[in-house]
Amino acid sequence: MDSGKHDTTGKVITCKAAVAWGPGQPLVIEEIQVAPPQKMEVRIKILFTSVCHTDLSAWKGENEAQRAYPRILGHEAAGIIESVGEGVEDMKKGDHVIPVFQGECGNCVCCKNDKTNLCQKFGVNPLKSVMVNDGKTRFFTKDGKYPIFHFLNTSTFSEYTVLDSACLVKIDAKAPLEKMTLLSCGISTGVGAAWNVANVQPGSSVAIFGLGAVGLAVAEGARVRGASKIIGIDINPSKFAKGKAVGITDFINPKDLDIPVHEKIGAMTDGGVDYSFECAGNLEVLREAFLSTQFGWGLTVLLGVHPSPRLLPIHPMELFNGREIIGSVFGGFKGKTQLPGFAKQCMCGSLNLDEFITHQLPFEKINEAFQLLVDGKSLRCLLHL
Amino acid sequence: MDSGKHDTTGKVITCKAAVAWGPGQPLVIEEIQVAPPQKMEVRIKILFTSVCHTDLSAWKGENEAQRAYPRILGHEAAGIIESVGEGVEDMKKGDHVIPVFQGECGNCVCCKNDKTNLCQKFGVNPLKSVMVNDGKTRFFTKDGKYPIFHFLNTSTFSEYTVLDSACLVKIDAKAPLEKMTLLSCGISTGVGAAWNVANVQPGSSVAIFGLGAVGLAVAEGARVRGASKIIGIDINPSKFAKGKAVGITDFINPKDLDIPVHEKIGAMTDGGVDYSFECAGNLEVLREAFLSTQFGWGLTVLLGVHPSPRLLPIHPMELFNGREIIGSVFGGFKGKTQLPGFAKQCMCGSLNLDEFITHQLPFEKINEAFQLLVDGKSLRCLLHL
Repeated sequence: MDSGKHDTTGKVITCKAAVAWGPGQPLVIEEIQVAPPQKMEVRIKILFTSVCHTDLSAWKGENEAQRAYPRILGHEAAGIIESVGEGVEDMKKGDHVIPVFQGECGNCVCCKNDKTNLCQKFGVNPLKSVMVNDGKTRFFTKDGKYPIFHFLNTSTFSEYTVLDSACLVKIDAKAPLEKMTLLSCGISTGVGAAWNVANVQPGSSVAIFGLGAVGLAVAEGARVRGASKIIGIDINPSKFAKGKAVGITDFINPKDLDIPVHEKIGAMTDGGVDYSFECAGNLEVLREAFLSTQFGWGLTVLLGVHPSPRLLPIHPMELFNGREIIGSVFGGFKGKTQLPGFAKQCMCGSLNLDEFITHQLPFEKINEAFQLLVDGKSLRCLLHL
Repeated sequence: MDSGKHDTTGKVITCKAAVAWGPGQPLVIEEIQVAPPQKMEVRIKILFTSVCHTDLSAWKGENEAQRAYPRILGHEAAGIIESVGEGVEDMKKGDHVIPVFQGECGNCVCCKNDKTNLCQKFGVNPLKSVMVNDGKTRFFTKDGKYPIFHFLNTSTFSEYTVLDSACLVKIDAKAPLEKMTLLSCGISTGVGAAWNVANVQPGSSVAIFGLGAVGLAVAEGARVRGASKIIGIDINPSKFAKGKAVGITDFINPKDLDIPVHEKIGAMTDGGVDYSFECAGNLEVLREAFLSTQFGWGLTVLLGVHPSPRLLPIHPMELFNGREIIGSVFGGFKGKTQLPGFAKQCMCGSLNLDEFITHQLPFEKINEAFQLLVDGKSLRCLLHL
């Protein structure tokens, strides 16, 4: 830890990170150099991080445009501030923090508007790979000579990382950092989609397509809101046991059906669910999710990340059936404004977070954590740094 | 008129109608037979009707599936009840009424829900060509031997027509029927999209793509709601003078630009409008409308009728920019419940309806009325029966 006698403020830190050198190649744990934070930036020591499907997608290089190597991936984490750059006044060394890939500058037209949690300056952008201040990186390899690119405003697969202060949320020092890691992405994204974006009502019906951590977090959010029917859909039957613990009342494995999923859901719900959530990142699934809602007022919330060149599989005239579809980023939470309160709610036990950390490994075994997610065996594997 | 000495109740009426015999063929004014209304049906004498783009589209047979000939088109009208079928208790002979293509049965899950104005039994359906009661028509030609199909729950291009009572709204007998004709489709569709669907707020910005009667009615609705900037977009510059009268503050003719319309609108509005309305039925226009709204919270309302086999020109990931798109049918008005009140508002002069009736012709000249609309010369040509 950074005690007074080893004060690293203003100095380059040499530490270990998991570096991605090319699409699909195993991450390499190696020594890197981390530059000090510049104006309005913060350098943090990561204590816990975990792997999410967005990391997988970037690691595979599925979208050619987002390939930037070498790169430090990772965006779900919790840590402690090592030092702050010029102008940072809302946080200081030693504060407990969680990174948020969806930043909040506080000054743009979006940050000043309560209709959105997007930020025009520090919004999520998988193509962005350098810092806003100077268009350069804070990570280097080969004794500081070779830059390593950033990822999703966060790059948490490193013992130390530098973020814009807009992308860092200070949380209560008493909050358990292991669990708070989940708020950095998965839990906030899922629960927030149910609470802030869909605004799930008591007694309503919900269908969730894709029971990864985000999909199950949607279920947990819907359960807390009092939804009376929560249907989980996944082709991996091992997800179903876990689903029960977070409030899923009915399961559908599309492989067991000889009719389209939306017809099955229509029959189970007298016409369709009030809300459906697409957490699979698959266009055929998206269409089933869209058609699974109630004619007249059904709302589909899109959470899954889709390859961008393809079009929405919806006909314009189908919008005249009263069904709506909207996107949800980070569960509609404004990170700096709303996440500290959400963290307090979680500390009070209003949400069941225990089910989500299915594995724990030392940081060095990060490639194992990737494989667990690829194989559909883990929800979240917490990596200890 | 149907005075007591010539009571036609329960009898077949022989009258004139404009019959469509094939796609794009001139309508033929000819004698037809109109059967009495059956259970929960109403037969009305049409006094005024007008031509809307939906009639044009069906007349051209643009969507092969909706070709059903011979057929009586027309859905915007006003008239007087000639007789009512068994069970009709909310209306009686002599009542002033306007047909609504988007019916309201009052009993289905949608009619009982305030989130939608759709109706599962009598919703708009361009493919429907017969009555719900018996799957047959009430119109005949060749001395009653040959059926003529219905259109859009209404078929108003006839001196007499039969509708389900769910598709007929009783209005104040003092309301001027000429103007009330506009409430049967265009005005309600446009004003309601601004009021009920988008819920346009005071001081907001609006872009309207396509300045036909519906687009101009959106402008009128936005003006009454206090929108501060109302941008009209049309490639027909003759629409611009009319637009000023209904509150349009800025005009864009895409033909005059060397940049995409959405970039122009972004520059005019510091990033985009709060609401855009697609009233053109063109997918390229729809995409421009979508991109013209503010990143973070822009709302696009789809009113135009699009050929159904094509997909929405929107990438799933673009929904993560916070822009929304929703469809609007009949302006979100529940016909029987809300239209009588809307008619009263119009009678009080809260809306400027005078600008919308640009031409008047005798019913016999209906083909001229079609041509005026095809040529972009008319907003509404009122046909007198």
